[in-house]
Amino acid sequence: MNAPLVETKTLGIERPFRFESGRTLKRIDIAYETYGELNGKRDNAILIEHALSGDAHAAFYHEGDQKPGWWDSMIGPGKAFDTDRYFVICSNVLGGCRGTTGPASLDPATKRPYGLTFPPVSIRDMVEAQRVLLKHLGVERLKTVAGGSMGGMQALQLFCDYPSRSDSFICIASAMKHSAQQIAFNEVGRRAIMADPRWNDGNYDDDVSPEGGLSVARMIGHITYISERMMQEKFGRQRKGIGTKTVFRPSFEVEHYLDYQGIAFVKRFDANSYLYITDAADNFDLMASISSKGRFRGQNRERGMNIGDMRAKKGLVISFSSDWLYPSSQSREIVRLFTAMNVQVSYTEIETEHGHDAFLTDCGKPSQIIRGFLASLG
Amino acid sequence: MNAPLVETKTLGIERPFRFESGRTLKRIDIAYETYGELNGKRDNAILIEHALSGDAHAAFYHEGDQKPGWWDSMIGPGKAFDTDRYFVICSNVLGGCRGTTGPASLDPATKRPYGLTFPPVSIRDMVEAQRVLLKHLGVERLKTVAGGSMGGMQALQLFCDYPSRSDSFICIASAMKHSAQQIAFNEVGRRAIMADPRWNDGNYDDDVSPEGGLSVARMIGHITYISERMMQEKFGRQRKGIGTKTVFRPSFEVEHYLDYQGIAFVKRFDANSYLYITDAADNFDLMASISSKGRFRGQNRERGMNIGDMRAKKGLVISFSSDWLYPSSQSREIVRLFTAMNVQVSYTEIETEHGHDAFLTDCGKPSQIIRGFLASLG
Repeated sequence: MNAPLVETKTLGIERPFRFESGRTLKRIDIAYETYGELNGKRDNAILIEHALSGDAHAAFYHEGDQKPGWWDSMIGPGKAFDTDRYFVICSNVLGGCRGTTGPASLDPATKRPYGLTFPPVSIRDMVEAQRVLLKHLGVERLKTVAGGSMGGMQALQLFCDYPSRSDSFICIASAMKHSAQQIAFNEVGRRAIMADPRWNDGNYDDDVSPEGGLSVARMIGHITYISERMMQEKFGRQRKGIGTKTVFRPSFEVEHYLDYQGIAFVKRFDANSYLYITDAADNFDLMASISSKGRFRGQNRERGMNIGDMRAKKGLVISFSSDWLYPSSQSREIVRLFTAMNVQVSYTEIETEHGHDAFLTDCGKPSQIIRGFLASLG
Repeated sequence: MNAPLVETKTLGIERPFRFESGRTLKRIDIAYETYGELNGKRDNAILIEHALSGDAHAAFYHEGDQKPGWWDSMIGPGKAFDTDRYFVICSNVLGGCRGTTGPASLDPATKRPYGLTFPPVSIRDMVEAQRVLLKHLGVERLKTVAGGSMGGMQALQLFCDYPSRSDSFICIASAMKHSAQQIAFNEVGRRAIMADPRWNDGNYDDDVSPEGGLSVARMIGHITYISERMMQEKFGRQRKGIGTKTVFRPSFEVEHYLDYQGIAFVKRFDANSYLYITDAADNFDLMASISSKGRFRGQNRERGMNIGDMRAKKGLVISFSSDWLYPSSQSREIVRLFTAMNVQVSYTEIETEHGHDAFLTDCGKPSQIIRGFLASLG
């Protein structure tokens, strides 16, 4: 069988989009991909939510590419999110830099990138943009909404804001709100970007961008994404290219690895987007958000949660034993909250050495569990 | 009783100092302080080794200062390192920037700071500089050599290189060699400095130094120095000054804390020193170092280890339960090594929430243990 191909499409929304902050943009684009087909009853749609550095390209191949989308091990014919059965959708988040409107997009009024004039983005704003996309695709109700890390936050937000719109949620390696340490790691990444003079208060061109700062931010991230033990097994104190070592250039294997990750990232990511998206994750607080629902009623009468709505709902929460960035204790908090809300929640902590990255790199057991969970939805 | 005063003194060594790399400097300065008096038998001296950002000012007050030295809770009359009984010495490490010669010192040949022309520094080089100081002070034999974190590395190195020169060692929250994760955190700090264009390959002036990069390096360090739980208890998701929040400026308390730590650090520390000293710690490998002793015999016939020498020796190893940067497993490795070398090693893991910083901030239990250990030396 040939590898299935996909293209990223763009939905242009030619009417004002209102952010949670109250600010509006006159128009936005949403980049998205779909896999599989929406059935006649329109009841087989699944929304996939990406994490900090992900994008709309969750599965299949782009023409000519050697590598598939970031969750191709989970999405496809016969896979956990089985595209022979489900219509799977993934879009780039609002504030991102991979096709959906974000701070690197051109402001139609100035023909210059928005930069820091872009409105602050919240997890709820991301979900609201996805709602517009779902409507465009003719999807009124989701079988499930699923994501890992910041994708899990979006899944929880959508599920709580629109309980009548999704039968279930799948939340992997995520949290209802960031701890001080999680905020701290993100803040240091932001500081690394802002400390780079090329950042220039967010006004930079492609040819002089804060690459140094952004790569440092990504390096910090990568340390937190894998377990201490896996890093030790993978790299230990091995060295590479000592012969050519100049002072303070990478010498240990782990230094080369981080260096490579930093350089690869700046080629595909925008520094201002990094600021906006990490800020959205740090400011996410599910409990505060759903208890302040009254605030949003004026904007959208449908939004709002009713515990009665939750009785027939299901949730799946997965954490990883060696994930020290989003420890299992945070997943257990999610389980407790939704159990109290009468949602039938299944929870598994998977034994793995892959750390937080397991949601991307160790998909065997999660696949089995998700397959069973989706089957249980009927 | 008035607070005891101390001054930092400087020993100028007007003869070539040879580094482990084989390179030499024509002269070096060593900044040091002493507390208490050397007795007639000259057998009551204790050498204190400082960590990454420490200096010679370990205890007592500088005239006019509000704060004492960094280990004042441990060193003083009646304290663990009792200056009524012991002659306590602390010096700034070679490669440092607090009085001892380092990359920020002026190269006599060029009248400009050494910058990256400074020779690479090893933990052994630091110890060799201390040896010159001890000789100057008339100290032939130490009661003990003690330090936390990188200070513990120096203590182990001195104890192994000169077993006839110290009755014992005290090694707190340290390691025989850095793990991949420890190297990774240091490397990201170095990258943050080097990514700052003001670093300029190490050639910068005081008025345009890589402050942004150095402060980011320090912020990363501070996350790793305290436990996740303590950070949560101390800061949680509390906010400060929201009213005045401009986009991406610190809003959460933990952001303000890290910001403050970063700014305070750049006022007293040199960016190139940070590169050299973290490089020394990353390259430290006690086992490799002591098994390659033959290499150094030509330089110093006295150096070298003999397991027979170790029988009457004692060691004290302390780790902290919540220290995730230097986990207890690394301290247990030290215990195993020295036990195999016939040293009588005591080991305690202290329950604390202070994380790695406990060696500086939670000195109650360590004080008791050290007091007992020193008493056992007779």
